[in-house]
Amino acid sequence: MRLRNKPWAVKLVQEHPESVIDRPDPTQKIDWSKRFADISKPLEIEVGPGKGKFITTMAEKHPEKNFVALELQMTAAGIILRSKLAQNLPNLQILCADAANIDCFFKKHSANTIYLNFSDPWPKTRHEKRRLTYKTFLQKYQTVLQENGQIQFKTDNAGLFAYSLQSMNNYGMHFDFVTVDLHNEKEDILTSNIETEYEHKFASQGNPIYALHADFGVK
Amino acid sequence: MRLRNKPWAVKLVQEHPESVIDRPDPTQKIDWSKRFADISKPLEIEVGPGKGKFITTMAEKHPEKNFVALELQMTAAGIILRSKLAQNLPNLQILCADAANIDCFFKKHSANTIYLNFSDPWPKTRHEKRRLTYKTFLQKYQTVLQENGQIQFKTDNAGLFAYSLQSMNNYGMHFDFVTVDLHNEKEDILTSNIETEYEHKFASQGNPIYALHADFGVK
Repeated sequence: MRLRNKPWAVKLVQEHPESVIDRPDPTQKIDWSKRFADISKPLEIEVGPGKGKFITTMAEKHPEKNFVALELQMTAAGIILRSKLAQNLPNLQILCADAANIDCFFKKHSANTIYLNFSDPWPKTRHEKRRLTYKTFLQKYQTVLQENGQIQFKTDNAGLFAYSLQSMNNYGMHFDFVTVDLHNEKEDILTSNIETEYEHKFASQGNPIYALHADFGVK
Repeated sequence: MRLRNKPWAVKLVQEHPESVIDRPDPTQKIDWSKRFADISKPLEIEVGPGKGKFITTMAEKHPEKNFVALELQMTAAGIILRSKLAQNLPNLQILCADAANIDCFFKKHSANTIYLNFSDPWPKTRHEKRRLTYKTFLQKYQTVLQENGQIQFKTDNAGLFAYSLQSMNNYGMHFDFVTVDLHNEKEDILTSNIETEYEHKFASQGNPIYALHADFGVK
């Protein structure tokens, strides 16, 4: 999702260095113990949170966890920050950086879950390497995730879903949950599902939502 | 698909022992060299062919291969047999038997491809073991298939598709092709797709057709 540039967002980000890590040097690990009150809490990361409805809702519902919104666009970072401030979410940090460097910003095997929600499908074959489920990304997620950590992936894009199933399977990942119609799943799955802005829009148009939870297996 | 019993079908099957192997003893391997003119041709099996439109079309299009329709219901076997006789398909044999015994009827690693088309979804959890993609079936297919052999699976049933993706992945199978919308795939995939009776009906109602090709990997 490409957002129109909003000057207020840039300004807000600049005013809140305690909440946003703005384009950090990828050669330097980030000391997350200085960013979260309790670093012993499980760490969860959303890659490409967009306007951040999912990650802010998660942070609100789960004060027992720490969350990082990894978002390249400054305007999106500003919108997430605005929600964080309004909702008072000390357990949410915003990392304004390129997802391709995710393995540079976190300690090895430090995260519990990585969320990929409605990522850009990059439908052209020549753009395959940009898809967030391309094997080089999976390799980086594997580095960042704990051994029992999970990728939780949702999309409305049939092509990206089929691609991701094959990419994750071919990489050797283990599927814990698969659905081709998330919004018609059983009650317990529906009640634990946090909708993104996109998801709400697409599902209300009658489109199926695809979802997949997968891990890298125990070594 | 449960078909109404047709007495003519039973009679036709009984009249054609050269074309139908009727409820063979699972403790005895079948000598396929006595059933096909040229046993060196690649062997392909459809499990649960129903009325057999897919397998008879395949046998007609591919005289360079041998085909076995593995179908439990006598009426369905009779309907397939009628097509075989009408279309003159010497490379198609009908095996009227329980798919749970598939590994009893074929030599180890003798088949090239196993087709599962629109199999019964058995949606209740307590019937999971009956689904043709349950792990005990996968184990039997692995025994029957050559090491580079493939399972080609199609369904319109969202639940069965998601289940099968997870079951095959968890079994350690390797995905070669996945789609959640077969009928909107690229031209080359569409032209090579042989529709079953069910597929034609469901797809023309606007329902997506899910498909998956998977192998057991090279040992």
